[in-house]
Amino acid sequence: MANDSALAETNRIEAFSDGVFAIAITLLVLELHVPEAPDGELWHALREEWPQFGAYLTSFAILGIMWVNHHSMFQQIKRADRGLMFLNLLLLLWTALLPFPTNLVAEKLREHSIDANVAAAVYSANLTLAAIAFSAIWWHVLRKHLVDHELTKAEERKSVLRYSIGTAFYAACIGLSFISAPLTLLVQFLLAAYYGFEQLRTRSSS
Amino acid sequence: MANDSALAETNRIEAFSDGVFAIAITLLVLELHVPEAPDGELWHALREEWPQFGAYLTSFAILGIMWVNHHSMFQQIKRADRGLMFLNLLLLLWTALLPFPTNLVAEKLREHSIDANVAAAVYSANLTLAAIAFSAIWWHVLRKHLVDHELTKAEERKSVLRYSIGTAFYAACIGLSFISAPLTLLVQFLLAAYYGFEQLRTRSSS
Amino acid sequence: MANDSALAETNRIEAFSDGVFAIAITLLVLELHVPEAPDGELWHALREEWPQFGAYLTSFAILGIMWVNHHSMFQQIKRADRGLMFLNLLLLLWTALLPFPTNLVAEKLREHSIDANVAAAVYSANLTLAAIAFSAIWWHVLRKHLVDHELTKAEERKSVLRYSIGTAFYAACIGLSFISAPLTLLVQFLLAAYYGFEQLRTRSSS
Amino acid sequence: MANDSALAETNRIEAFSDGVFAIAITLLVLELHVPEAPDGELWHALREEWPQFGAYLTSFAILGIMWVNHHSMFQQIKRADRGLMFLNLLLLLWTALLPFPTNLVAEKLREHSIDANVAAAVYSANLTLAAIAFSAIWWHVLRKHLVDHELTKAEERKSVLRYSIGTAFYAACIGLSFISAPLTLLVQFLLAAYYGFEQLRTRSSS
Repeated sequence: MANDSALAETNRIEAFSDGVFAIAITLLVLELHVPEAPDGELWHALREEWPQFGAYLTSFAILGIMWVNHHSMFQQIKRADRGLMFLNLLLLLWTALLPFPTNLVAEKLREHSIDANVAAAVYSANLTLAAIAFSAIWWHVLRKHLVDHELTKAEERKSVLRYSIGTAFYAACIGLSFISAPLTLLVQFLLAAYYGFEQLRTRSSS
Repeated sequence: MANDSALAETNRIEAFSDGVFAIAITLLVLELHVPEAPDGELWHALREEWPQFGAYLTSFAILGIMWVNHHSMFQQIKRADRGLMFLNLLLLLWTALLPFPTNLVAEKLREHSIDANVAAAVYSANLTLAAIAFSAIWWHVLRKHLVDHELTKAEERKSVLRYSIGTAFYAACIGLSFISAPLTLLVQFLLAAYYGFEQLRTRSSS
Repeated sequence: MANDSALAETNRIEAFSDGVFAIAITLLVLELHVPEAPDGELWHALREEWPQFGAYLTSFAILGIMWVNHHSMFQQIKRADRGLMFLNLLLLLWTALLPFPTNLVAEKLREHSIDANVAAAVYSANLTLAAIAFSAIWWHVLRKHLVDHELTKAEERKSVLRYSIGTAFYAACIGLSFISAPLTLLVQFLLAAYYGFEQLRTRSSS
Repeated sequence: MANDSALAETNRIEAFSDGVFAIAITLLVLELHVPEAPDGELWHALREEWPQFGAYLTSFAILGIMWVNHHSMFQQIKRADRGLMFLNLLLLLWTALLPFPTNLVAEKLREHSIDANVAAAVYSANLTLAAIAFSAIWWHVLRKHLVDHELTKAEERKSVLRYSIGTAFYAACIGLSFISAPLTLLVQFLLAAYYGFEQLRTRSSS
């Protein structure tokens, strides 16, 4: 396969993925509803909706960071095969699905029953599956030598480790969900926010 | 028409099509609703929603594979005429419509009346029309020599046959719908999944 | 302004416009609802929804052809200024709004009261405003010499005439709406379909 | 970092941002509902929905102008770092959120209680946060020398001042919301419209 056409291929995969990320991240807003409240109580009713806003913010931050990571990963990929296309579709499946568990969490987070835990666990499971798909793409890319330059064994191990840690973190969140649903959401938001700020900081000092 | 401008034309058709595919595949999630369930019954209620998830997964897999096929087809097309544009719009019509029969199937699949069969038949009819549009594009492309290189007669016949088989398969699914609606959905999902995995496998061993 | 950067500018306007066209055309499906019908009556209920499908098809055809026209127009535009950007935003305003009058028509077309006429008139008014925006863009482009080559006076007059005829046609449809709402929709669909097929035919014979 | 890859990076940020802008601007229409009205009263009922249309128009104009500004800003940015990516995500957060306060305003604008003021204040706060994000991006870009050419101190000060004025204007609108909600919306719409027309005019005479 010629080099130009291979690059065109990864470009179109990126464009399609960007589309799905952009749509999923923008569709999140559809679940923020104008609260039904007695006259003059709008401000109070809006504050009561904090789980909606919390879930919105968390999912926005996570999808945003997934997009940045997807971006970084594909900058290193210089050739695409059909395997990469299908594994990427698997990742997009979990990306496009995220608004659903986001709604689950938004509506159930304040329930005192087990439902709040179930909602948080479904949310964490969705993220775990997305993390697994990320790992699978990277593993496939390494195995098929689709990167633009050869990585040393040490670099390979380090990059695989990084994806494994992400997967383990989200899997652990499934367990955490049954201890406290709001805490699970908070931890996931803080990690996403920390990751974002940390990037800002390390780049600022470099 | 200059070569560059012809290429720009197919590029813009691809970009527009990618947009419609990406939006349709992401809009599917809007039909997954938080179930209304008594306190503490969320997990049970979610499992009861399996037709929703089944229809979501099947449509996601089919739209994903349609996108991959569209992609492969347009990589071979080097010039666009208005005929191609309008036939492509016809394909996008059935693509953009798919979320509707997906909802039909999701809501009616467990009905014991004829409604489940009607829903599955409408779903299969939509896919048949999409397959016909795919065939029409390819037939137009061959007849107007819009491909980048001449195909031999044998290659042409083989490629046309491939599209005809897809069309016949979905048409047969319209009939199958009246025997068993869940089976129809399962067969369509398995074919899409098989097609995806098979691609992974054949590429791995090459 | 350098040539490359000017081209990049029109490219980004086109990409943004393509996004709005693709989203508007795909959002149309959200108004197709699973009909509520007694058990076993789904097929009957779907046929009763013909105004929904008619409005969907008509708007899809019109948006599709608007996209093709937008495409053709921008292929001739080689430089962008801010005026072009804002006039294009005006066109996108009416494009993005179209799903709303489409719903109006879908829900009111079978009413025997004046409501059916009002819905069709609002729909036609939306299309008239879009046609005016198209004309305004073209007029601006000619006046500011943003096309890639100079048009002769005769070519200019012909191209302006073509846009004026489109505008007059949709304006006439506002009047027609008060005679017959279904007829108005039918005429608009047939014109869009004719236009599409005619393009296919003339290109086939050339 | 090589020049080509740096440019590819800003291009992909722009493409993703364009996607979010295009989706947010097109999703606004989903909040325009067919009014429930007695037979023959559709026209009257539509006119009663003027806050919906007013909010739609205002948000469309503001998002359109934000897109134009984003466009102009990124034309001057020739390199991207992760800091730029995350600050841009912050801007997109407020962009993607805008349909929610738009709905708030659309539904509450005619209330005689404090709710109308609260809705307008939330709307203005969202725009203020977007303006702050714009300023933060520009400040980061200047500090990290990501622009394509060095700006003089005077140019820098002037550009920073321009963003500060925008931020101050929207912050002032939060206060204005508690005097009159419809006036707040009108002022914001007029400014956006003026800004658009002014661009048309200055370019026409140049």
